[in-house]
Amino acid sequence: MVSAPRTYTSPFPEPDARLLGIAEQLKPELIRTELPVRNVVEVVADDASSLGWKAVPAAVPLVEDLPLQNTGKTFVLDVGEHIAGYLSFDVAGMPFEKEPADAPARIKLTFGEVLNDIAEPFEPYNGFLAKSWLPEETVVLQRPHYKPTTMRIENRYAFRYIKVEVIATSIRFGLHFTNVTATAVTSVSRQNPPELTFTSDVAASLGLTAEEKDLLLKIDAAAHTTLRNCMHTVYEDGPRRDQRLWIGDLRLQALANYETFRDRDLVKRCLYLFAAMPFNDEGLLCACAYEEPEPHTGGNSIVDYALLFTNTLLDYVKFSGDTAAGQDLYDIALKQFDLAARRIDSDFLYNVPVPKSLLGGEEWHFIDWQQELHKSTGFQCIFIFCLNALVELSQVLGKPEPSIQLPQGSLPASKLASELRTAIRKAAFDGEKFVSGPDKQLSWASNAWAVLAGVHDSQEDAQKALRIAYESKDSVIANTPYLHHYLCEAFIKAGLSDLALKHILHYWGSMIRSGGTTFFECWIPSNPRFSPYGSFASQSFCHAWSCTPSLLLRQLGLA
Amino acid sequence: MVSAPRTYTSPFPEPDARLLGIAEQLKPELIRTELPVRNVVEVVADDASSLGWKAVPAAVPLVEDLPLQNTGKTFVLDVGEHIAGYLSFDVAGMPFEKEPADAPARIKLTFGEVLNDIAEPFEPYNGFLAKSWLPEETVVLQRPHYKPTTMRIENRYAFRYIKVEVIATSIRFGLHFTNVTATAVTSVSRQNPPELTFTSDVAASLGLTAEEKDLLLKIDAAAHTTLRNCMHTVYEDGPRRDQRLWIGDLRLQALANYETFRDRDLVKRCLYLFAAMPFNDEGLLCACAYEEPEPHTGGNSIVDYALLFTNTLLDYVKFSGDTAAGQDLYDIALKQFDLAARRIDSDFLYNVPVPKSLLGGEEWHFIDWQQELHKSTGFQCIFIFCLNALVELSQVLGKPEPSIQLPQGSLPASKLASELRTAIRKAAFDGEKFVSGPDKQLSWASNAWAVLAGVHDSQEDAQKALRIAYESKDSVIANTPYLHHYLCEAFIKAGLSDLALKHILHYWGSMIRSGGTTFFECWIPSNPRFSPYGSFASQSFCHAWSCTPSLLLRQLGLA
Repeated sequence: MVSAPRTYTSPFPEPDARLLGIAEQLKPELIRTELPVRNVVEVVADDASSLGWKAVPAAVPLVEDLPLQNTGKTFVLDVGEHIAGYLSFDVAGMPFEKEPADAPARIKLTFGEVLNDIAEPFEPYNGFLAKSWLPEETVVLQRPHYKPTTMRIENRYAFRYIKVEVIATSIRFGLHFTNVTATAVTSVSRQNPPELTFTSDVAASLGLTAEEKDLLLKIDAAAHTTLRNCMHTVYEDGPRRDQRLWIGDLRLQALANYETFRDRDLVKRCLYLFAAMPFNDEGLLCACAYEEPEPHTGGNSIVDYALLFTNTLLDYVKFSGDTAAGQDLYDIALKQFDLAARRIDSDFLYNVPVPKSLLGGEEWHFIDWQQELHKSTGFQCIFIFCLNALVELSQVLGKPEPSIQLPQGSLPASKLASELRTAIRKAAFDGEKFVSGPDKQLSWASNAWAVLAGVHDSQEDAQKALRIAYESKDSVIANTPYLHHYLCEAFIKAGLSDLALKHILHYWGSMIRSGGTTFFECWIPSNPRFSPYGSFASQSFCHAWSCTPSLLLRQLGLA
Repeated sequence: MVSAPRTYTSPFPEPDARLLGIAEQLKPELIRTELPVRNVVEVVADDASSLGWKAVPAAVPLVEDLPLQNTGKTFVLDVGEHIAGYLSFDVAGMPFEKEPADAPARIKLTFGEVLNDIAEPFEPYNGFLAKSWLPEETVVLQRPHYKPTTMRIENRYAFRYIKVEVIATSIRFGLHFTNVTATAVTSVSRQNPPELTFTSDVAASLGLTAEEKDLLLKIDAAAHTTLRNCMHTVYEDGPRRDQRLWIGDLRLQALANYETFRDRDLVKRCLYLFAAMPFNDEGLLCACAYEEPEPHTGGNSIVDYALLFTNTLLDYVKFSGDTAAGQDLYDIALKQFDLAARRIDSDFLYNVPVPKSLLGGEEWHFIDWQQELHKSTGFQCIFIFCLNALVELSQVLGKPEPSIQLPQGSLPASKLASELRTAIRKAAFDGEKFVSGPDKQLSWASNAWAVLAGVHDSQEDAQKALRIAYESKDSVIANTPYLHHYLCEAFIKAGLSDLALKHILHYWGSMIRSGGTTFFECWIPSNPRFSPYGSFASQSFCHAWSCTPSLLLRQLGLA
């Protein structure tokens, strides 16, 4: 029995009022778009879809034409697109005979990002993330009447499909639903950036088929939707679950955004929120932040995310030209390196601890949701990648090159990067590829980050290592689009545009082929029911870190 | 498949705008009283209670001291009294460790009028009344935080107990509930009328024990609560279910009210609502009426209720002196007799049809929720009882005695009453008691209504018949307090005050002994789980027609 605390004492430092004030001034007004929802669909099993379902128009295809819905009746509506937002509808209690509606109506709503949410029961729920995230609500209309009542679901949900189940009416009446309205909210325009044209020389050289071009257009559109539906008053990781700002997601969202929606202020706001609310008194950054009911620290820190804050800041300054913000947040960025460098041993190898638990803790090293992954080599390369960004940031801001505090003394950042590079090449490069740990584990993570960190001696070496990691059956692959993104970024950096494109078509394309109109938090094409959280329904099907195909396709020159 | 109607055409006459306008001007402002709810109780099995449960203070007796409530935790609050109203509470999501609340909280609330609502599952639900009346709601707090959020349940419920079930939080936090507030609503003062004093000579002659006096005080208080919690913007039949105005209930409520709260305007409003919204073009009155979203006809008519409108109007005029309202509604009252008299045969026996269904229809003759009951004799006596009131009403209003249109011609009301009396005495009086139907069924209903209609030749005859009906094991008894009331009224009219008192102590007293603080819709002391609706949970435990002990006890001279 846990006794009730009478007062709350925050274990975190007081937020920095000045920085928080800047963040709050940048809080955007949300754009609300009302979408009429009329289409009734039937969800049917579909062997051709790896997720098992497809939607077809129902026998009565429009909601206003449905027969009266009474106890036990169910129908499914299709918004036509994935949104983050609200649902409202008018509902009339229409008498079957002479007597008017004489009892309440109890209506259960299930919000589906994918058809599985609608077609499969959530119970038994085996997820270890909170069951309270399951997207369902039951509402009670106390006084149905032939004059419709407007019902508004106050909570925001992420959905394309809505299952409406009439739990109970009475024998006297059925329900007639009209004016079903999905109100999409986002802080960015609903206008997509220009479509891919495939007119560049590069595009021509890739020899795309019409089918591939069509799929790429769908991938690009789904990437825009994914990003848009995560853009609210912060860059959320996903509108279904968590709904939080995370540094790792923010970086990828911001990069995709610079190529598409071209927002500056929301990125800036997010950088300042992190800066204002450190995890501890040393200034370690949180991995995530909350906004409501007031901005507060997220309660965990991820070492790679803390370091990637620098890259996110650099990306922002380069895109926006806002060097003042860069100057303002520079010391906070730099601080993360001093804190992380405590784990660098005397041989310049970063020591990734064995995690105490899967989630959280102050020494969480993420890289991917992949329990098999040995993270030492990948993390060492991330450290180098971030150090490189730090050096570039100091240059962009006209600052002297910073030094990083190590247990063995202070070193200039570029010198430290060089030492780390030498050390990891010695420890983990077997002449053709990078491995990690005593078992010399081969993985995408180690080799993608090695390329991004620039630890290879030549482009040929980089290509070779990447190819081996990518093509070997023994290689530990990526489970999340987060690492899939960095793999593709590594392909592009190594000059393997064909592989990047092939991988995008394969990986993000398989989500489209499974019925996705947004991209998922976790996805293994060969194991589509995979979830790192114990339940398929507890993952998010519109997730920030999977929004980058729009960025990658433009980096590939297909715009 | 029932096709959806695109437009609604009312099968009822257009409401009379003038009469409706008078009713609407009399609509009262509701009085809202905020009651802090702090007491946590444990509900334990109790063999001594016929309903099986009792509440005892919980180990942690105050809600604000409860340990943090997370997934699966449940507790029960006791408002301390039965109310009709609303619930609100503050809920904080308090972190167990460092990480703040990171997920929604899903909370199920069950509103209990009696402990059975709390202690027994509603499922499987076998009631034939709408399951949507079951008093439960599930709410989702999207963003728990250590700063409490105020949650308000928008629908009104009738409750004394609240079961709070935390369906889901996350592993990170538990809920701390504070400021739980039940807001009682009623249109009448929360001040009870003066308590029974037992100082009259009559009281002395009844030889009440201290225990009986104590029980009578509790019965009287529960009667006040029952009436108060049914008094809203109409006299509702019950705040748990239906929440509608019914003529039969209204009459008893109004009578009890004249002895206690002494409202005039709400009775007048209700009389005008019925008058304004007839059931058909002939002017037949509805049995019930709805108020929301706008006043509308209730969709059924009950012959005894239509006739009892006259008694209700007479009672009102006599209490208030408002003869203008009597004049205004007189023709509508009179009309009900012409319509009902169509079923009077040439031998002056009223022909009660075999009901087509248990509920509803235009030829519904109620008397009691009692399927075994043969209703002919009882109904004939009700007709006489109502005719007597009509004659008295015409006298009070200074009008000539009205005539009633019969198939065989028109007759003055008192003449018709006399003919009906002669006919029923001939057909159904066996020299000592009234029976009904070909099987000569003995029942409380036939004999109570015979007394109330004054069809006996002497007080001795009335007493004898009532005693036989009451004491015979073969007699069909009453299932609802509605008929129990008329039995007691008959006892009093026949000069059997001792039996009336004994019956009140037995019948309403047994509800008190079962834990009731209000009186129930249906109640058979020897079969406490009886419900005419197929499920115990679908009945109402604070019901209009059971509110009359306060009236009866004052008629008995105990005030």
